[in-house]
Amino acid sequence: MSTPQTGTEAIAAVATSAASVSDVAAGCLEKVRELDPSIGAFRVIDADAVRSRAKELDDGVAGPLQGLVVGVKDVIDTADLPTAYGSPLFSDHRPSADADVVAALRRAGALVLGKTESTEFALFHPTRTRNPVDDSRTPGGSSSGSAAAVAAGMVPVALGTQTAGSVVRPAAYCGVYGFKPARGWASTAGIWLLSEHLDTVGLFARCAADLMVLYGVLRTRLAGTPGGDRQPPFPRVPPAVAVLATDEWAACDQEAHDALRFVAGRLSGQGWDVREMQMPPSWRHLPGHHGTVMSVEVAKNLRGRLGDRVAQISESARAVIEQGELCSATKYLAALEAREEARRLLAPLAVAADLVLAPSALGAAPEGLAFTGDPVMCRPWTLLGLPAANVPAYRRGDGMPVGVQLVGIGGDDVSFLADLALVEAVLTEKED
Amino acid sequence: MSTPQTGTEAIAAVATSAASVSDVAAGCLEKVRELDPSIGAFRVIDADAVRSRAKELDDGVAGPLQGLVVGVKDVIDTADLPTAYGSPLFSDHRPSADADVVAALRRAGALVLGKTESTEFALFHPTRTRNPVDDSRTPGGSSSGSAAAVAAGMVPVALGTQTAGSVVRPAAYCGVYGFKPARGWASTAGIWLLSEHLDTVGLFARCAADLMVLYGVLRTRLAGTPGGDRQPPFPRVPPAVAVLATDEWAACDQEAHDALRFVAGRLSGQGWDVREMQMPPSWRHLPGHHGTVMSVEVAKNLRGRLGDRVAQISESARAVIEQGELCSATKYLAALEAREEARRLLAPLAVAADLVLAPSALGAAPEGLAFTGDPVMCRPWTLLGLPAANVPAYRRGDGMPVGVQLVGIGGDDVSFLADLALVEAVLTEKED
Repeated sequence: MSTPQTGTEAIAAVATSAASVSDVAAGCLEKVRELDPSIGAFRVIDADAVRSRAKELDDGVAGPLQGLVVGVKDVIDTADLPTAYGSPLFSDHRPSADADVVAALRRAGALVLGKTESTEFALFHPTRTRNPVDDSRTPGGSSSGSAAAVAAGMVPVALGTQTAGSVVRPAAYCGVYGFKPARGWASTAGIWLLSEHLDTVGLFARCAADLMVLYGVLRTRLAGTPGGDRQPPFPRVPPAVAVLATDEWAACDQEAHDALRFVAGRLSGQGWDVREMQMPPSWRHLPGHHGTVMSVEVAKNLRGRLGDRVAQISESARAVIEQGELCSATKYLAALEAREEARRLLAPLAVAADLVLAPSALGAAPEGLAFTGDPVMCRPWTLLGLPAANVPAYRRGDGMPVGVQLVGIGGDDVSFLADLALVEAVLTEKED
Repeated sequence: MSTPQTGTEAIAAVATSAASVSDVAAGCLEKVRELDPSIGAFRVIDADAVRSRAKELDDGVAGPLQGLVVGVKDVIDTADLPTAYGSPLFSDHRPSADADVVAALRRAGALVLGKTESTEFALFHPTRTRNPVDDSRTPGGSSSGSAAAVAAGMVPVALGTQTAGSVVRPAAYCGVYGFKPARGWASTAGIWLLSEHLDTVGLFARCAADLMVLYGVLRTRLAGTPGGDRQPPFPRVPPAVAVLATDEWAACDQEAHDALRFVAGRLSGQGWDVREMQMPPSWRHLPGHHGTVMSVEVAKNLRGRLGDRVAQISESARAVIEQGELCSATKYLAALEAREEARRLLAPLAVAADLVLAPSALGAAPEGLAFTGDPVMCRPWTLLGLPAANVPAYRRGDGMPVGVQLVGIGGDDVSFLADLALVEAVLTEKED
């Protein structure tokens, strides 16, 4: 049989007995053996355990994700594999239990292939992982290994986390879908804590259908704080798209603008309502407020968890802690209040538009591995807690992907995923 | 007819047509005319409006609080009376709507007699109000007027607010019951905002029955954040009482200890289980953590509401703002985390005891009006969000009341009020 290309195909193949879980797992392990020595997406894989777990799945009662093989970011606890949080301080650490999200995956019949490389504590100190499209470039971070593993085809889907831009940005750099659902959609129990107000589980895939399957099954099985104080909107088909230029756009390179124009043109060419919208002036300060909330909570949590060992972590991580510890409590509370203020503008904006279209990053993946790129294009949407995804729709002349970002302004993940699938359909149709 | 002495008596008198609301209101107005010139408990009363509203109540459909006349602290919005928040900056301010708690009172048929004096913004700068027991002394604060009005018999009950010790302390100084229910029991919408984590509506009365009636009716009509992540405990009758000495006890004077010993002796004399309990060591820091949370949130809220007019407020209020603005965000978050940590110890403690018995204040009301007293004895319980009340059980030789404080360690207001009524019964029986 031909190897399934996506998670949905693999689930279908297993369901119709065209393939076994063992076949699918063997295909993934083969890809890893072939590609990962030069990419370094996986930190640890126990191939024997994978094979034996695949056999158990083949012999057991099928769950809804039977046939799906998943990479799990190293900041997410697994009871059967070491979890180092991207830090040498935890190189021998093995959690006593799975994170809630991993337990939900397993209960649904998915197979965890291994742990993917994360930057140190999901902050800025890079991994060894290389960008699969150009191995002289960073894959982005902090979910470096998950993005690279999916982009290289080693797994169809992977779990990441986003506190600033750690899902959308590496997805953009590697040319895959990276979906950060609405804040609070899934329990973060068992995941390295950076920021109570920001940390969100995210998903990588090569097609929107895989995101929908994985999201749907996890959502029904995970008791997160419901992201939805908001009502699912009455669906507007096709969705209305707002190009909402923020100040950070000035820092984007020409290619980021080209990618955006390309997608906007494709959508409006299909008769979609794509229009420029004015940014609410107070939103100008959202990236700064995001940085305030993140640095303070990172400082508290890293200091609390590491104590004196803070002296042993990277300089860039210590810089975040120092910045957070210098911040006054009133400035921190003002940032949280500004977030609430900004969120109050979402309901009126959602009347006019369903999706915001914006760059995912300042441009393509930077050269070298030392710098995982700037998360600034993601900060406002992460702070607002809105669903956001990279759409891998555009490549520049040398083949490097340049992502565009869609943001679900109504806040509802399910409507957003439906819109994302429509966007994918339009972009794919034209490219055929 | 003889004037009803308590709110419950007044409600009963009106219900049995032994008195009209107009009679009860006239009695209160007469008391105010007689006593308030020397006490200064009320900031504003519109006697004509009171009489006309009383007549409306007599002519209308009776609510459950029909016949109850209430004083309302000046930091609580009333649409029909000026609300100055204790500050000359707002001397002409008239809110456009009643606070939720006032609206609930009115819907239940209670009659608002007038606004009682509050310290400036419910902080430390004093009112003109004098202690009804000794007019050379402070009534305490910040709910100075509510405590004094109830103590002097001008109204049977009054509303106050507590952020540190602003209900329990003035109740202790004036010799009445002051009940701060569990955090979040009632909406604080329409009340001057000092601290999101601490502000709590409190009740003053001269007997436990009045607290129960007022609390019960308001609770069922007010959509507060339920104080109860806790289950109402299986009732233990009589309740077990823990004398839990905290470090602050060292600052209490001899009389505060005498009052405590008196009450402990009365209860154990009736066969109650009264025993000393060890304070969890981490609780030692709760007063400091309370001060951190309060000063930061006061700084944010006063700065936000007053802007440049902060220059025009009292030095003591500016000192709180300055303290708050100097606090780091990580120290603030550490204080909130310590609170959560301390709250986790409540469930095991509640197995051993229902009530904590402690001083309400460092001693009797201080001389003079400049200093409203130290709230330190209330800080830990307010931070923990537990129900707490002053019990007016003891007077020293010169007649000055010295309060003791009961704290409901299980966190459930209704069980706490039942226990409070039992305590009152024991103390009253012995005194007869």
